Amino acid sequence: MSSRPRKLFLAALAGERQARPPIWLMRQAGRYLPEYREIRGRAASFLDFCYTPAFAVEATLQPIRRFGFDAAILFSDILVIPDALGQMVAFESGEGPRLDPIVDAAGLAKLAEEPDWMRLAPAFETLERVKTALPGDVALIGFCGAPWTVASYMIAGRGTPDQAPARLFAYRQPKLFAQLIERLVEASTAYLLRQLAAGAEAVQIFDSWAGVLPPAEFERWCVAPVAAVIAKVRASAPNAQIIAFPRGAATQLGKFAHVPGLAAIGLDTAVEPRVAIEALPGRIALQGNLDPLALVAGGAGLDEGVDRVLGGFGERAHIFNLGHGILPETPVEHVERLVARVRKA
Amino acid sequence: MSSRPRKLFLAALAGERQARPPIWLMRQAGRYLPEYREIRGRAASFLDFCYTPAFAVEATLQPIRRFGFDAAILFSDILVIPDALGQMVAFESGEGPRLDPIVDAAGLAKLAEEPDWMRLAPAFETLERVKTALPGDVALIGFCGAPWTVASYMIAGRGTPDQAPARLFAYRQPKLFAQLIERLVEASTAYLLRQLAAGAEAVQIFDSWAGVLPPAEFERWCVAPVAAVIAKVRASAPNAQIIAFPRGAATQLGKFAHVPGLAAIGLDTAVEPRVAIEALPGRIALQGNLDPLALVAGGAGLDEGVDRVLGGFGERAHIFNLGHGILPETPVEHVERLVARVRKA
Repeated sequence: MSSRPRKLFLAALAGERQARPPIWLMRQAGRYLPEYREIRGRAASFLDFCYTPAFAVEATLQPIRRFGFDAAILFSDILVIPDALGQMVAFESGEGPRLDPIVDAAGLAKLAEEPDWMRLAPAFETLERVKTALPGDVALIGFCGAPWTVASYMIAGRGTPDQAPARLFAYRQPKLFAQLIERLVEASTAYLLRQLAAGAEAVQIFDSWAGVLPPAEFERWCVAPVAAVIAKVRASAPNAQIIAFPRGAATQLGKFAHVPGLAAIGLDTAVEPRVAIEALPGRIALQGNLDPLALVAGGAGLDEGVDRVLGGFGERAHIFNLGHGILPETPVEHVERLVARVRKA
Repeated sequence: MSSRPRKLFLAALAGERQARPPIWLMRQAGRYLPEYREIRGRAASFLDFCYTPAFAVEATLQPIRRFGFDAAILFSDILVIPDALGQMVAFESGEGPRLDPIVDAAGLAKLAEEPDWMRLAPAFETLERVKTALPGDVALIGFCGAPWTVASYMIAGRGTPDQAPARLFAYRQPKLFAQLIERLVEASTAYLLRQLAAGAEAVQIFDSWAGVLPPAEFERWCVAPVAAVIAKVRASAPNAQIIAFPRGAATQLGKFAHVPGLAAIGLDTAVEPRVAIEALPGRIALQGNLDPLALVAGGAGLDEGVDRVLGGFGERAHIFNLGHGILPETPVEHVERLVARVRKA
């Protein structure tokens, strides 16, 4: 075991700046890859694809083979939790997710007490199989959606420009909304613990819609539930490495400074590295934050953007990533160019 | 003249905190008002409505009559500038704006050198007529879109979730994009100067899409052009009172601290007042920033939100507003409740 190569990603996550930053990209497995599009067509639906280990393992490994990223991330979706709680979830091609929206207490009462673990078993099997297949220097990441972001889909029944339905629900029925958040804290905690048991070496909590919340609501529905998940996971798995990605946290990033047990925070494209360095203590590694559109554009704009990110984090532990998921229209050659430039840094 | 009542809004804009904050709401004239919906139907199109002083004057005055706001704002749209530069602009009901997108140098070359002032003459006539009709203590605000936000519509041809087409265009063809921005700086400057000459006592520059720009792009495409408009307007009208509203500026708000001649900055819903107070010098008044969804929700959530905004600005000059435009589904009674609570403060 002691001869296993040290993993750059895990070393950075431990708060140590590396000679060159480890790199992975959010949504690195997916539609921009021709080899992904080829296998995606073999499953009847997106959820079927996620729940079939043969497909999910292959999709998780494809970007590692092609680009040699420093971490692989489980191929899945944040909405498997509402699915496993019994809410109808479907992905219509080109349309994004559709759920049977929860509009009142009766809708909330229909949810199962805990996720259907049989339904989620393929995710754990995928992690186990990926773990044995990965090169020794590549780390394996699990993930879930943050309670606020998942709740916002469960209430709206879909993605919206600003998740207004959930924000309205929370203003009008804060107690009921708190019950839903609490249910998701419990489900997410148990889900992450099972991912860690299945081989994930770190987990990321995606709060894609954190940025639409005003300050008081941000504390109540974003920071507090994420902090609760982290505390509960680490109560059972004290060494769990957990990354939070509160997209759009902006001036509220500093509210994560005092969350115990947070290993790293993901920065969206709009955050200036200097601001994050000042807002968060040195024990928290910083991950991000190249504009995904710079990666689509390529050329000098891409190189300048990469260099700004590489040069922005000073002596802070840094994991190179995008500020949001890679876009389906991204040319594969631009990703190659990015990886070469980061490796040369 | 000296007996004219002092205008609360202008006093706050001058950097003096008032016993109670002046209040107006972005999009205060519009679809949430039954009296607006009644007259809107009499014009064939939204642009026809804007360009007909009888309608625009009435729409501008309606919310003043109903709620007694401390400022009226010209009823118009930020896309009258591309329209006056010769780009095709249409508003389809329920669909948002549609423009003939600019995709290359040839498209840019088709724009007129300067706006068709005959086309925009109704805006100036509207301001003149509103000015004479307003109660003596109500201020009159003119406005334009910021170059970045207007350019983002001109390139995409429509609103998109994150104005990606313009961001891509700027990455790929920065020189061409800079030419478009420069054209808009000139047109906006001339447009605002004419509004001030027609009776506007302050003007607001709406940069609704500022928040999608990464740091370097934010400085180049948001701060610099807005600063240029302010400098150029004040070169001809040294006392012009100018408000910038860089929606989503977030951690980059401080970049406006050194913009000369900026009277106030509008804060979006996500900005904590304390953060803005620290980021911006005392000479810059702060405007905002109640969540428009709290106003839709009403009840205790609204009252708590109003109180947080009222209590958040300490000794800083503050103009009460929303963090974004009022939503069409807002109940009129909630606006009455808001105004009463702010007046009681």
